[in-house]
Amino acid sequence: MFLNLEHLGIAVKNLDEANALYARLLGVEHYKIEEVASEKVKTSFFKTGEAKIELLEASDPESPIAKFIEKKGEGIHHVAFEVADIRAEMQRLSSEGFQMLNTEPKLGADNKLVCFVHPKSAGGVLVELCQSIIPE
Amino acid sequence: MFLNLEHLGIAVKNLDEANALYARLLGVEHYKIEEVASEKVKTSFFKTGEAKIELLEASDPESPIAKFIEKKGEGIHHVAFEVADIRAEMQRLSSEGFQMLNTEPKLGADNKLVCFVHPKSAGGVLVELCQSIIPE
Repeated sequence: MFLNLEHLGIAVKNLDEANALYARLLGVEHYKIEEVASEKVKTSFFKTGEAKIELLEASDPESPIAKFIEKKGEGIHHVAFEVADIRAEMQRLSSEGFQMLNTEPKLGADNKLVCFVHPKSAGGVLVELCQSIIPE
Repeated sequence: MFLNLEHLGIAVKNLDEANALYARLLGVEHYKIEEVASEKVKTSFFKTGEAKIELLEASDPESPIAKFIEKKGEGIHHVAFEVADIRAEMQRLSSEGFQMLNTEPKLGADNKLVCFVHPKSAGGVLVELCQSIIPE
């Protein structure tokens, strides 16, 4: 099972402008910026209680975020849930008939292992699973 | 400021089918179903840590959810944040240049006063503010 809603990912065109907009909206400033080379995105994070808001700007025209914005415009891109054992959850979801977008977890933002469920198998929602990497 | 991400609203075509799908996905069953006549929706709720998942099925062809699905298909519809004083937050957001979809809070699902921010002024995201009604 999923432990909690870890963050909501929002696709934005310009991270600097969006950081200012979301600071006015949420009433708090972003607390970090991180580039995720593997996903071709630059991200920023806001804390809103237990869950975070993650803004995502494409750092390359081939980024999934650039393609998303081209097709649908700015807005909510994915929802991420924390899990205790990402490989076990990937196996559980596959056996339940969900289509996984990766066969192995990969390194995501915020020091986490992540994987994605295809929105076609999850009611039109791009679902991310994430597991915090605990330093040894 | 917003206190926490209270729930994520997801538009679905058929609530019974979606309840089964999301129970398989999240690994928990929905814990309640509620009809909100004012919004022409039937909703169900799942607990995922501090935040909830709210599924929304249109109970009338004129429901905002029916129109959303017609235009964009099933998927994430809005994100809701808990606030301590909804009227004060509405005033704060208006003064920050956000366009509110209602001038007065209205009664929403889950025993809350709610209002919405227009997605055009909030980076393409339909944002709900909600304040729990404490029985006297």
